[in-house]
Amino acid sequence: MEKINMRQYFDYESCAYSYLLFDPCNNKSVLIDPVLEKFDRDMGIIKKLDLDLIGILETHVHADHITGAFTIRKSTGVPIYYGSQSGVRGADFILNDGDCIQVGQFEIKTIHTPGHTKGCVSYYTCGMLFTGDTLFIGGTGRTDFQDGDAGTLYDSVTKKLFQYPDNTQVYPAHNYSGEMLTTIGEEKKWNPNVGDSIDKESFVEAEKLKTRPYPKHFDTAVPANMHCGRVPNK
Amino acid sequence: MEKINMRQYFDYESCAYSYLLFDPCNNKSVLIDPVLEKFDRDMGIIKKLDLDLIGILETHVHADHITGAFTIRKSTGVPIYYGSQSGVRGADFILNDGDCIQVGQFEIKTIHTPGHTKGCVSYYTCGMLFTGDTLFIGGTGRTDFQDGDAGTLYDSVTKKLFQYPDNTQVYPAHNYSGEMLTTIGEEKKWNPNVGDSIDKESFVEAEKLKTRPYPKHFDTAVPANMHCGRVPNK
Repeated sequence: MEKINMRQYFDYESCAYSYLLFDPCNNKSVLIDPVLEKFDRDMGIIKKLDLDLIGILETHVHADHITGAFTIRKSTGVPIYYGSQSGVRGADFILNDGDCIQVGQFEIKTIHTPGHTKGCVSYYTCGMLFTGDTLFIGGTGRTDFQDGDAGTLYDSVTKKLFQYPDNTQVYPAHNYSGEMLTTIGEEKKWNPNVGDSIDKESFVEAEKLKTRPYPKHFDTAVPANMHCGRVPNK
Repeated sequence: MEKINMRQYFDYESCAYSYLLFDPCNNKSVLIDPVLEKFDRDMGIIKKLDLDLIGILETHVHADHITGAFTIRKSTGVPIYYGSQSGVRGADFILNDGDCIQVGQFEIKTIHTPGHTKGCVSYYTCGMLFTGDTLFIGGTGRTDFQDGDAGTLYDSVTKKLFQYPDNTQVYPAHNYSGEMLTTIGEEKKWNPNVGDSIDKESFVEAEKLKTRPYPKHFDTAVPANMHCGRVPNK
């Protein structure tokens, strides 16, 4: 069995990564965390690769950019998937912890990883974890809004994601330094928030002391994303 | 035998990709096309991954940013490799067409691919081609300076790179739309400059008619890169 094919894409404006996964044998594909402004690029790539897009998978309700999910569904009819705790309206499928999505011959497993937001999920397939804003390269998502909780995030990472083998590749929803991926082994060893060098209590205390800017697009992104990325009056 | 590990890195300023290749069994590694301004990031990653850097491989004399090669060598003593037609001064090893560099248990093969510049090379290992400015995702490097030649570039791509299997992954030195990789099959099918839809004569004529801006950092980058990235008075 070939490995599922994966393509990573970047949005320079929000520094957000999107991921396209496809079965090279039958071209079934899903898109993880598309960005609204990248609709033309993403649709162009799917057409170019002659893919049969069967799902749009969201890791969470993004606060810094609007998801392309709603617009892609409007254009293609492809269903939208969210974690069951996300609270979004209008999703086609709600994913419980452990639920799998079949993409051709491959299964993508849903892992509930709350903490950055209450409804965050990660996805696992073929040695790759797509961790959204739960686990970054050398960091973790902020925990000070959208029912975020530092202790919950610490547990999600250390008790769930860190159970995967050390060589599991980790693909986050953001990076700001030009890095594309990390591994579970590297994050266990080096992550200053959830790695071996810090305990839960210290992380929770450190999160409390952090002051972070109000997200630039919070007031437009969150309301839109609570409806799968539907922009009012559009 | 495990596949060589590869990490792709991005510089937001120049939209340049760098690549770190390493043998996971013994941590021998090489860096392709490092960017001077990313010295701290790149050295930090090499330290974090506990890699034994044994070479800095350049695809060509870049015109839009200064390579980090000279500075990395100054700091670490690691040798610098260039294609034999590059004309650079101060490289440690000069690579002829077909020359291989051993990185742990893996071989990286040099392919002379002139056209963007006279001295351009691509590198091949483990199903991956690192094509520099010779072959982009849906494009090719400009051919109007540094002894560039459109017909030569067309031949380099179609007679050399396109001989690799369709599923060979292609990693370029630049992208400006957030895409990370392509394949030989996709470029044969879709590349408007060198793909199936265009012949050599038409490409050469089209290149002649293109007007392109003077590269922003040309006057500082090229002189520095002709000396492996040595910046005067530094």
